[in-house]
Amino acid sequence: MVDFTNGPAPAGFLSPQRFEADIYDCEVEGAIPKDLNGAFVRVGGEWFYPPSRPDDSPFSTDGYISSFRIRDGIVDFRGRWVQTPRFRNNLEARKQLYGVYRNPFTHDDSVRDLERPYLATVANTSPLAFGGKLYALKEDAHPYEIDPNTLETLGPWDFDGQYKAQTFSAHPKIDPVSGDMICYGYEATGTCTDDLWIYTISPDGQVKSEVKVKVPYVSTLHDMVLTQKYFIFPVYGYVTSMERLREGHLHWAFDKNMPTYWGMVRRDGDGSDARWFKGPASVVMHTINAFDDGDKVIVDAPISDGNPFPFFPQVDGSPWDPVAARHTIRRLTFDMASSGDSYVEQILDPTDVVDLARVDDRFNSLPYRYVYSSMNDPEQPFDRDRAGNNRVVNSYFRYDLQTGEWRKFFAGDVHSLQEVSFIPRSANAPEGDGYLIGTASNYADMRTELVIVDAVEMEQLARVYLPFRHTAQVHGRWYNNQELPLADSPIPEYTGRRQT
Amino acid sequence: MVDFTNGPAPAGFLSPQRFEADIYDCEVEGAIPKDLNGAFVRVGGEWFYPPSRPDDSPFSTDGYISSFRIRDGIVDFRGRWVQTPRFRNNLEARKQLYGVYRNPFTHDDSVRDLERPYLATVANTSPLAFGGKLYALKEDAHPYEIDPNTLETLGPWDFDGQYKAQTFSAHPKIDPVSGDMICYGYEATGTCTDDLWIYTISPDGQVKSEVKVKVPYVSTLHDMVLTQKYFIFPVYGYVTSMERLREGHLHWAFDKNMPTYWGMVRRDGDGSDARWFKGPASVVMHTINAFDDGDKVIVDAPISDGNPFPFFPQVDGSPWDPVAARHTIRRLTFDMASSGDSYVEQILDPTDVVDLARVDDRFNSLPYRYVYSSMNDPEQPFDRDRAGNNRVVNSYFRYDLQTGEWRKFFAGDVHSLQEVSFIPRSANAPEGDGYLIGTASNYADMRTELVIVDAVEMEQLARVYLPFRHTAQVHGRWYNNQELPLADSPIPEYTGRRQT
Repeated sequence: MVDFTNGPAPAGFLSPQRFEADIYDCEVEGAIPKDLNGAFVRVGGEWFYPPSRPDDSPFSTDGYISSFRIRDGIVDFRGRWVQTPRFRNNLEARKQLYGVYRNPFTHDDSVRDLERPYLATVANTSPLAFGGKLYALKEDAHPYEIDPNTLETLGPWDFDGQYKAQTFSAHPKIDPVSGDMICYGYEATGTCTDDLWIYTISPDGQVKSEVKVKVPYVSTLHDMVLTQKYFIFPVYGYVTSMERLREGHLHWAFDKNMPTYWGMVRRDGDGSDARWFKGPASVVMHTINAFDDGDKVIVDAPISDGNPFPFFPQVDGSPWDPVAARHTIRRLTFDMASSGDSYVEQILDPTDVVDLARVDDRFNSLPYRYVYSSMNDPEQPFDRDRAGNNRVVNSYFRYDLQTGEWRKFFAGDVHSLQEVSFIPRSANAPEGDGYLIGTASNYADMRTELVIVDAVEMEQLARVYLPFRHTAQVHGRWYNNQELPLADSPIPEYTGRRQT
Repeated sequence: MVDFTNGPAPAGFLSPQRFEADIYDCEVEGAIPKDLNGAFVRVGGEWFYPPSRPDDSPFSTDGYISSFRIRDGIVDFRGRWVQTPRFRNNLEARKQLYGVYRNPFTHDDSVRDLERPYLATVANTSPLAFGGKLYALKEDAHPYEIDPNTLETLGPWDFDGQYKAQTFSAHPKIDPVSGDMICYGYEATGTCTDDLWIYTISPDGQVKSEVKVKVPYVSTLHDMVLTQKYFIFPVYGYVTSMERLREGHLHWAFDKNMPTYWGMVRRDGDGSDARWFKGPASVVMHTINAFDDGDKVIVDAPISDGNPFPFFPQVDGSPWDPVAARHTIRRLTFDMASSGDSYVEQILDPTDVVDLARVDDRFNSLPYRYVYSSMNDPEQPFDRDRAGNNRVVNSYFRYDLQTGEWRKFFAGDVHSLQEVSFIPRSANAPEGDGYLIGTASNYADMRTELVIVDAVEMEQLARVYLPFRHTAQVHGRWYNNQELPLADSPIPEYTGRRQT
């Protein structure tokens, strides 16, 4: 018996979704550009069964992948659960067998496996298209391969045994120069281990390099950033230990006294020359971009001074601080010619922004000009709950690093936006010439809407209406039909009798 | 491009649904009786593409079938489009090719077929389980067979060519004594024909009798009623003609000057002795039950004095009358020993009720005691829009024909109920000992809920929450696992790789 009446969200927009759905030929207002041929793929999580404890993190929700297939102005939607071993085990037991976030000690006896914590993954964080294949990612396990058309789960993938870390990031990077994927696993040899293993994989699935380093302390390595010379990793504030896990806690707690480290690992090295630069406490869940500038390395990211997640407790027992949780876009400068371990941190603009920024991916690891993200625009009418942890994200923005110009797109006064993705208008279009795409939660009509915006004019081109609310997204990405072998929006087959 | 922004319902609970969905192990509050093993099957319609004209009837919406599979306290939900030729043609054209309600002259050239109007059916009215098979029914075409587990459309069915009428009712009756199905088609030989063909079919699918009669005038024969001696058909108020259709109108208009006729056709005859009894104008879209009482025939039905459907115009151009549209439970008495053509009509209770009443089907065609239906209970708080055409149905009731007692179940102050279905507690339980089941639209949480109520105490036992609004129902019925070969709620198959 599945009973969510005691939470975590018994009713309202965020209450459990729990369904798989198909829509052919979605409802569209406006006109979708005819040159868009691809899919906007979202990975997120929903509680299929309620959490085993009320303090569990939403990061333990069951993985769900959905796709808006767009071609010739037409949109087809599909959503499916990611069939991880955990999801299957719960389905068979018809209840939640698993304990709290990434703590194998808290799982039910029938599924507890301290040696193979990755079997408890929920694959709920991010999509990845690489080498013509689609994956659902979570940082505690291998990628789960997904059929890009049916969204059927094909299973975990270790690149034919070449990828040896136990874990894989939700945020690998594709180098636009080489076409290679740079990916990594932290806690790479088991729960709470300080091993960070970094892989370079070619589009045909061959591991070209494996680099092993040790981290200064075991922390969330949720995202990385890349230049043409360096793999770069932020280590910050979240701490864990086997003792902590044995005591039954969630994997992470936040220690505001821990410094931030930035690891610089030469892409052409073996990891032995990794340098860790040290700075004040901060949180860098997601990065924006980085590039080499002579002997300097420039890193841009939305950074907060403190813990953005109220469900990860403070180690000192202090209450969660919503002000320290706010993000601004900051630029860090590392002087690789110096022998010191410090860096310069500059707030580029004091505006609060959402911690999910995108660039034109063709400029990943390279000098670039435009940042795209979302914000709660205080100039717009819908800014309820601004001070708290449930801020409403009503606008996309384009921030011009060259001129400091902000351009905004307001999504509606009853809408909250999820992560935006940038689509170049064509392979050779100049940086920033293209579209923005992402979903909006319409709280008034209790439905999810796909928003397509001109990324230069910041004006809406089309909006796709789903007939239901569909919150399941952590990250979403656009992949075109050259990145994924997408079917041409076929209508569903009919094999039944026909009347004459 | 699918654009509903101009209607018929651009937003809100009744806006287009347009999706197919699967939910394993639905969310349940309360406890579903363990003895329930079957499926609550609903057939209704949604606009897949917007109607070709704003004045079209909602009866033209595309057929959709959904099922709540219940077993061992567990509920699985599934919803699928009924893949009629019309639905397939629209999908292929990616637009609405069809004109207004049952008017072949208004269809697009590419699909207009005056000789085979049944190819334009939407199969959107009622489910039927018979002989171990499931069908979606609409009165303008043959049944569409549906796989009871996958809800896949298997195609139209004419009982191996034995069923020769072009049309089939949405309301066939199962005789609980013989086990036979009594079904019929009106306009049986083509659009606007006055042929009513009545069939008796055994559970193994063999046609046992075919009876052909002529109706006094061509009208909606939406429902019939059965006794052990008679097939009984009401003919009332709605009129049509080929001229009307050639002018581009919807199939029906309402003529308040037309009398009501009740046709009595002996089940053991050949139709030549059919008698038509005549009474004042009324509308009898649905019946409750009937039985023989010596030489008398008793017929119970929710009856209105006028047109319940605002989308079917009045022939005299007068405005739609919401007061004449209200239904009361009435008893008609026919004296078959008399030579006259009149009958006695008695309002059993003046309470307004919904025109969708059910009985314990084991007493169909037999003397019986209890009527189950829904109403807008004026004693309860949620009675907005009571006087208009959009009344809110907040309560089920049990009406005791023997004592006149009303027992009510209030479904909630933000809920509107759809048709209720009665489930006997066991095959041999006394009349009325069992459960009521049906869906409620929760306007506050924008979701559909399945309500299961003790039919004696009229108290809620369980409620199943769908995570979305799901309006698609005209009629819903409970079928147990002896009536349909239902799978035992399997979890979905997984054929992908497994990590070791």
